Amino acid sequence: MIRDVVVSEVGPRDGLQSIRQVMPTAAKLRWIAALAAAGLPEIEVGSFVSLRLLPQMADAAEVVAASVKLPDVDILALAPNLKGAERAFAAGVHRVSMPVSASRLHSQSNINMTPELAVEQVAAVVALRDSLPPGHLPGRGRPGVEVGISTAFGCTLEGPVAEDWVIALAGMLAKAGADTINLSDTTGMGNPAQVRRLFRRLRSEVGVKAGGAHLHNTRGQGLANVVAALDVGVTTFDSSQGGIGGCPYAPGATGNIVTEDLVFLLEAMGLRTGIDIDKLIAARDRVREGVPGESMYGHVPDAGLPRGFVAATVKAAP
Amino acid sequence: MIRDVVVSEVGPRDGLQSIRQVMPTAAKLRWIAALAAAGLPEIEVGSFVSLRLLPQMADAAEVVAASVKLPDVDILALAPNLKGAERAFAAGVHRVSMPVSASRLHSQSNINMTPELAVEQVAAVVALRDSLPPGHLPGRGRPGVEVGISTAFGCTLEGPVAEDWVIALAGMLAKAGADTINLSDTTGMGNPAQVRRLFRRLRSEVGVKAGGAHLHNTRGQGLANVVAALDVGVTTFDSSQGGIGGCPYAPGATGNIVTEDLVFLLEAMGLRTGIDIDKLIAARDRVREGVPGESMYGHVPDAGLPRGFVAATVKAAP
Repeated sequence: MIRDVVVSEVGPRDGLQSIRQVMPTAAKLRWIAALAAAGLPEIEVGSFVSLRLLPQMADAAEVVAASVKLPDVDILALAPNLKGAERAFAAGVHRVSMPVSASRLHSQSNINMTPELAVEQVAAVVALRDSLPPGHLPGRGRPGVEVGISTAFGCTLEGPVAEDWVIALAGMLAKAGADTINLSDTTGMGNPAQVRRLFRRLRSEVGVKAGGAHLHNTRGQGLANVVAALDVGVTTFDSSQGGIGGCPYAPGATGNIVTEDLVFLLEAMGLRTGIDIDKLIAARDRVREGVPGESMYGHVPDAGLPRGFVAATVKAAP
Repeated sequence: MIRDVVVSEVGPRDGLQSIRQVMPTAAKLRWIAALAAAGLPEIEVGSFVSLRLLPQMADAAEVVAASVKLPDVDILALAPNLKGAERAFAAGVHRVSMPVSASRLHSQSNINMTPELAVEQVAAVVALRDSLPPGHLPGRGRPGVEVGISTAFGCTLEGPVAEDWVIALAGMLAKAGADTINLSDTTGMGNPAQVRRLFRRLRSEVGVKAGGAHLHNTRGQGLANVVAALDVGVTTFDSSQGGIGGCPYAPGATGNIVTEDLVFLLEAMGLRTGIDIDKLIAARDRVREGVPGESMYGHVPDAGLPRGFVAATVKAAP
């Protein structure tokens, strides 16, 4: 499967952790399987955090262990610290995603650490990963460690976040051994000019470790920011089916970009995601079954595909 | 007032014509005055069409006559044909906007004419305009004639619309004497790659007559398409306060982009619109009063401005 852009589904983690209802484990697994069957190349399926903080994620180990058996999909999980990463690796996750906040106030409230201590946790997780046997994941070697710099585009608590500091933090994370460094607009404060600037600078600072964009649609700017990121060579985008989710510790910061609308954007632009849009839209039923009555968003599911629309992935199919 | 981008408010026309409720004339005038006071440089205030088709627009002449007295704002009205333009000019409109559809089926159902006949109507309106006395509009000379090519990015009835034909039609309209030729994504089928291509080609074809973008958010792509249009030098964007509106003759084609979210996008990018966002958001109350209970959209009004946000227009103020 040739893909021009990687759409990384974060709904089962970012979406489910921000709503009150707890999706039963079996329902999660049906949803994740439906997403994988629709062609999603990456799915973040859970979060290895304190059960007290996020009961929605209590089954993370079980969900990871089952999900990694699905073919042709990378399974990610969030781990805020070494303890979480230990559990994630033990469950057989393909990659852990660690949040490191650029905003000191957000860092404190989200993971109860300074950004500098969070960088040390990343270094500890990298060391742990490197200590795993080379055959830890059959056919895949050792798991990956990626970091998302949260509040990279601004913070609901602090306001603007200095771009120089975000880039310095990215440099520190690269030195700490992170494989990939993503930038997150946790609070939906980013704009396309800023997205272009920051991702250009990220690439200059950390080279091939420069990762993808985790954008929120809080102020309706999500897909506009995707276009800007594409312009400067970003090829991985996080999104959430039905747009559920957000960050429970940043007030007003709800709203991942909607996977359905993102995939339509990319495919309409001629960029192959490898995703079957019809199957993707059908997977919304798994969310409805798992968390009945929960709000779901998305313009494309409502309006339908345009008459005569042919996705780039379909055009490219042999 | 130095502006980098012109935001052209079409809510009082495109918005109000697509809902069942009729906003009373006095309420329209209060809304239009509030928009002008917020710094909107252009407002399309009505449509000179058959009363039978659009009773919401029955007071167009009265609304135009009152609106043109507002300071520092260009007042536009839609006129689908010579008869409509005659009424618009008589009411003292600053510019008429004529819809010419690239899709034959849409053209027939929207204005009951072939595209070629619509071009002839434009030529007739230009001739009428040229026959007006040079002092027709005190201090402004003769009114302008602009054309919006509808369904330029696809049609709900026909499907894809050939780009070569859209550009050929633009050439015909330039020869017919239109001052400005805009492209309209009437059906919300456009994508950023297509927006870049078509606006580049429009500029090549008609030079300085190349106009702005009228984008719909039907599939959530509206602001993404704005970013693409900005990239290729487009500097005028239509939008509707609260996102009300659409095209009543193209099924499922509702949803102008939301003025509030558009202005935030532009100002956040450092582009001066001359618009006071707080006053703009306050003007939503005039819509609520005029058409009680009508759905309004917009992420920025819901989420609020980001902490510490300073608009480009404010930064640039003396």
